Amino acid sequence: MEDGEFNINLTIVGLGLMGGSYAMALKEKNKGHIWGVDLDNNTLKNAAEMDIIDEGYSIENAYIPLKKSDIVIIAIYPEALVQFVKNNVNNFKKGAIITDVLGIKEDNISYIQSILGDSAEFLGGHPMAGKEVSGFSNASKNIFNNANYILTPTVKNKKDTIEFMKKFIRSIGCTSITEVTPEKHDEIIAFTSQLPHVIAVSLMNTKSADDIKHFVGGSFRDATRVAMINPDLWCQLFMRNKKNIIDSIEEFQKSLNQIKGFIKEENVNDIKQFLKDAASKKEGTV
Amino acid sequence: MEDGEFNINLTIVGLGLMGGSYAMALKEKNKGHIWGVDLDNNTLKNAAEMDIIDEGYSIENAYIPLKKSDIVIIAIYPEALVQFVKNNVNNFKKGAIITDVLGIKEDNISYIQSILGDSAEFLGGHPMAGKEVSGFSNASKNIFNNANYILTPTVKNKKDTIEFMKKFIRSIGCTSITEVTPEKHDEIIAFTSQLPHVIAVSLMNTKSADDIKHFVGGSFRDATRVAMINPDLWCQLFMRNKKNIIDSIEEFQKSLNQIKGFIKEENVNDIKQFLKDAASKKEGTV
Repeated sequence: MEDGEFNINLTIVGLGLMGGSYAMALKEKNKGHIWGVDLDNNTLKNAAEMDIIDEGYSIENAYIPLKKSDIVIIAIYPEALVQFVKNNVNNFKKGAIITDVLGIKEDNISYIQSILGDSAEFLGGHPMAGKEVSGFSNASKNIFNNANYILTPTVKNKKDTIEFMKKFIRSIGCTSITEVTPEKHDEIIAFTSQLPHVIAVSLMNTKSADDIKHFVGGSFRDATRVAMINPDLWCQLFMRNKKNIIDSIEEFQKSLNQIKGFIKEENVNDIKQFLKDAASKKEGTV
Repeated sequence: MEDGEFNINLTIVGLGLMGGSYAMALKEKNKGHIWGVDLDNNTLKNAAEMDIIDEGYSIENAYIPLKKSDIVIIAIYPEALVQFVKNNVNNFKKGAIITDVLGIKEDNISYIQSILGDSAEFLGGHPMAGKEVSGFSNASKNIFNNANYILTPTVKNKKDTIEFMKKFIRSIGCTSITEVTPEKHDEIIAFTSQLPHVIAVSLMNTKSADDIKHFVGGSFRDATRVAMINPDLWCQLFMRNKKNIIDSIEEFQKSLNQIKGFIKEENVNDIKQFLKDAASKKEGTV
């Protein structure tokens, strides 16, 4: 096999934006089977017809592909993830690697690893990729290209598993893979992902959209791109990372109050320094 | 001449991102002369070599093209704009239309119109187009494509002038042209443009960029795109629209505090409603 190719039997649970994109990206790299599990029969049918999965299964029949899968990628909401693992704890293949794609880790991972015991290995994963739209119809194999990917190993994860997952993730196009603890992940992601979502929806809810339609340019459009949010998913993410999100909002509020103060006082020097600092930090980040 | 073509002698003052883009976009549409005025000789030389201006002039020699120009597009910083008009008040061709591209209007326009008297007509304009980078080297004729454009006529502007400017603006690619008073412009733009910039720089200044490099995805990247800000220009914009910007920040702070409160209280219903409202407003805006 060429570098970046695999021969693995795997199951993707949840063929939404992330799961569907994963299936599309993997289909080209993997010589083994790819099975899909979803609540929606039409999605399973479409995915099979597009030949990005070999066969689709309902949640009730998930045990059929799970028993044969070396890798299981679970791409469903936080509450559903925990429930799915609980319901299928005896259906995973001995030694299988299970991963997820969620933006919160700590809560879920400690619980999931405790119920799995030694039967299968759960390694948390978070592709920093996405779109402002959701669902299988918006999936694309390209969303992983050059994206950051975070792995959140714990003491329960084997070194080999982590190394294998890194190769696996690189094969779908991610270039920067970082390892942090689930705790640290949740703390940083509250700032780099959940806070921009909170800001986008707050900005959108400040004024009537009708009044501003013809007055928006790129800055407003970009700041609110993710306001096209999936309410159920993000409500769960907010609830499960509550403390970190509140902390991030409050840190941001301090920074916002600082520049507001400078503007109020017409403190030109401090405004310029604030803008210069932001510009140079931005240059170092993206 | 074809529809959307012109035969006008015009001067563009300031060949930065906006002025340079204007020259590029107009060169294809205008059969008359296009002259450029800039502080930087190299920019004038480059623009002439690229054949997007016929000839370049220093600020001191601006009177030479101004005396022959039916349209003058001034694309420089707020303070410089007022100074330029003041210094050249006797150099404009009788009946010339003068316009600008700035994100603040009220202060400048009342002053400029008062010093111009009846010799030339100033009609404020604001293309809602731009980039996070500045300068002639980043100019592009495409930045106006499908952009919103705002005109801010006052009682001093003739109906014919407004109609002419609309045709002129449509010819460079803008599709939605809206007329509002300078006062209303400044109030709305504080929200749709200056606030997203304030948010982007505040977000950037919240945490060390080094700590988050490998943890950013699209939402953070987009929310901070405009943090690559031009400190001098934006400091002037903030100072000249201070009251509206403070009001916009405070309205946004209320909205942000609202969702923070819902998250703190784990008020799932209100969080979901807040997200749903934001998503449907966003859908109606872009």
